[in-house]
Amino acid sequence: MSEPFRIGVLGTGTVGGALITLVPQHADRVQRITGLRPEVSGTLTRSSGDFKQILESSDLIVELMGGIEPARTYVLEAMNAGRHVVTANKQLLSQHGDELFAAAGRNGVQLRFEGAVAGVVPVIRVLQESLAGARIERVYGIVNGTTNFILSEMARLGLTFDQALAAAQELGYAEADPSDDVDGRDAAAKMAILARLAFGAPVTLDRVRYEGIRQITPDDMEYAREWRLSLKLIGTAERIGEALSVRVHPAFLYPGHPLASVGGPFNAVTLESPEITEITMSGPGAGGPQTATAVLGDVVSAMIPPASAPEELVAIPIVDDVVSAFYLHLEVADEPGVLSTVARVLADHGVSVKSVNQKGMGEQARLVMVTHPVIESSFFAATAAISALDPLRSPPRAIRVIEEEF
Amino acid sequence: MSEPFRIGVLGTGTVGGALITLVPQHADRVQRITGLRPEVSGTLTRSSGDFKQILESSDLIVELMGGIEPARTYVLEAMNAGRHVVTANKQLLSQHGDELFAAAGRNGVQLRFEGAVAGVVPVIRVLQESLAGARIERVYGIVNGTTNFILSEMARLGLTFDQALAAAQELGYAEADPSDDVDGRDAAAKMAILARLAFGAPVTLDRVRYEGIRQITPDDMEYAREWRLSLKLIGTAERIGEALSVRVHPAFLYPGHPLASVGGPFNAVTLESPEITEITMSGPGAGGPQTATAVLGDVVSAMIPPASAPEELVAIPIVDDVVSAFYLHLEVADEPGVLSTVARVLADHGVSVKSVNQKGMGEQARLVMVTHPVIESSFFAATAAISALDPLRSPPRAIRVIEEEF
Repeated sequence: MSEPFRIGVLGTGTVGGALITLVPQHADRVQRITGLRPEVSGTLTRSSGDFKQILESSDLIVELMGGIEPARTYVLEAMNAGRHVVTANKQLLSQHGDELFAAAGRNGVQLRFEGAVAGVVPVIRVLQESLAGARIERVYGIVNGTTNFILSEMARLGLTFDQALAAAQELGYAEADPSDDVDGRDAAAKMAILARLAFGAPVTLDRVRYEGIRQITPDDMEYAREWRLSLKLIGTAERIGEALSVRVHPAFLYPGHPLASVGGPFNAVTLESPEITEITMSGPGAGGPQTATAVLGDVVSAMIPPASAPEELVAIPIVDDVVSAFYLHLEVADEPGVLSTVARVLADHGVSVKSVNQKGMGEQARLVMVTHPVIESSFFAATAAISALDPLRSPPRAIRVIEEEF
Repeated sequence: MSEPFRIGVLGTGTVGGALITLVPQHADRVQRITGLRPEVSGTLTRSSGDFKQILESSDLIVELMGGIEPARTYVLEAMNAGRHVVTANKQLLSQHGDELFAAAGRNGVQLRFEGAVAGVVPVIRVLQESLAGARIERVYGIVNGTTNFILSEMARLGLTFDQALAAAQELGYAEADPSDDVDGRDAAAKMAILARLAFGAPVTLDRVRYEGIRQITPDDMEYAREWRLSLKLIGTAERIGEALSVRVHPAFLYPGHPLASVGGPFNAVTLESPEITEITMSGPGAGGPQTATAVLGDVVSAMIPPASAPEELVAIPIVDDVVSAFYLHLEVADEPGVLSTVARVLADHGVSVKSVNQKGMGEQARLVMVTHPVIESSFFAATAAISALDPLRSPPRAIRVIEEEF
């Protein structure tokens, strides 16, 4: 009934700390899905914990230490000891991928790393599984949240790079030493990992050409605004004939480009293939709880036996009456008092009008209004009452409006 | 070495036909991933094939017949015989989900159905696997490509519903009898499936409140344009307190809403959860090859043994010199002939200018131009030559521009 699945966690920084909190919170749900109850069986910090002992008492090792050593040694030892490994360490994967994947294959264990690229945006899983039957031609996108935040703030507020970087550091979006992010090296490591998966080729970080965003000025942003362009740090991995190009650089995007509207610390990745045309995925690029959720998703996948019974269903009541804002279109006789009559009926039903537009058209007039959010049953009671009004020339027409706060 | 994995295909319409073409095309790649070579072992059409015989000779059954019967009977029989099942049949899943999932659990087989919702957009896999460690609060989006195409055309060209429907039918985006799509029933079935996965609750089609788009007029679209709103058919499944609301209706979206820019036959789904804030995924919503790719991804997942060796890597050369358009920013002395000198250097290196903007600023002038796409090494050779020019007051600044055709 409650057989445990023991998770050893190496590294207890932002992501590791969030994971240690998430595991007990979601233990019931994971147990329903997998039949096993996850628990953190040991943690290794800089000052405490013993790796050999954690390895002995774990079914799976999560590596969240960052950096190359000792992370590389521990991950290899864990796989050699027959343990599945989940990691979010993009530098390790992009520099020692060949060695790590070979060890996973040799030992018949899983090596999962959704958290290493684009935070919770599930681009790794989609490349590995959903698109197993597609030939990928190009992967490109915004894979560094820090630089996207900085560029968004420069565009929005006219800040210099240094001012926007300071704002990012204050909000926790940039580290004290931001070089890896702002010089493009973090994005380059992620593009190396994506290129390996997309093309099945041994691409490592040293093969990725990259530039950062330190050189971008408010002037550049002003021209962008004038020409309606957005400036983003774009990573691209693509087939060019029989070869590949993998690169990271700032680029202006034309208005309406799917990545142009991705603002703040968000990431977004587009996958292109002749079979599917394209898929775009976007979401928060970093953050402890987000990356920890991606890591936990990987842990759950490693736990799932080949043919799992589906999760037990829970009965939850279904409500039919929700709150919506409405566009209301009325064709009325153009006579005095119509607007006030309609407004009275709406008010009587608790419907509050946000904006109204009245157009005379000969003997008729058209009243078009947008309401504030209201319980739908009240709104429909109001429109039923309005349709009975004398000046109405045709049934009221209503369409929901989704506002900013949706 | 070449152990076969036998796929029985029920239904050979648009999706089934595309799948039968895809399987041999991708057999090598799938074999590298799974160790097994996929092959179509039998097909059932309206006029040919015998189900019992196909079942006997298959490791997995793909159901692409549509409708309830005989699809339901065949899928149940296949699972009872211990076969994994992949289906894209949203009506079947949304009306008989309880029975089907129970049969999968009882028989210890996989029931996969990525192709049933949002075409190749991998929302099912992400809900089931990536977000296994997250509590989903809301799933919403555009899950019917036919209606999104019709609404996009009404907005773009000022067409009536009937005119836009006819255009959709001509392009193959709408069926001869479009009722399921335009009345919202297709979207409602998909939202029932998404609600079941997101909330672990037995939501069936008859619990989903839905409206279609037949009533939308060019007038509505005109007001939308005036107010910068987009009109979309939106499906929503959300927790409201301890209950659920699952519904489909047209809605105006404020400018900048992540779904507002999803045009034509595309689908997009947003998943919201406190742990991840939100993930949005978009891509083509339908089409034979797209849905067949989603189906093949499901087949590959069902083939993967629990601990698979990673795919063998292929060495592919990496190119460093690609084609890009550039923004070029020059601070120059404001004297006659500077523009023509710069233009000559660019032309000598094969760089063609698309637009140019010159601003006098006292003794200096600023030349800002955007080039047509050019081999990067030629462009950088040109800027190196330009920086050596006498009138240059500071080094040239170049940023890539991603154009519409990217």
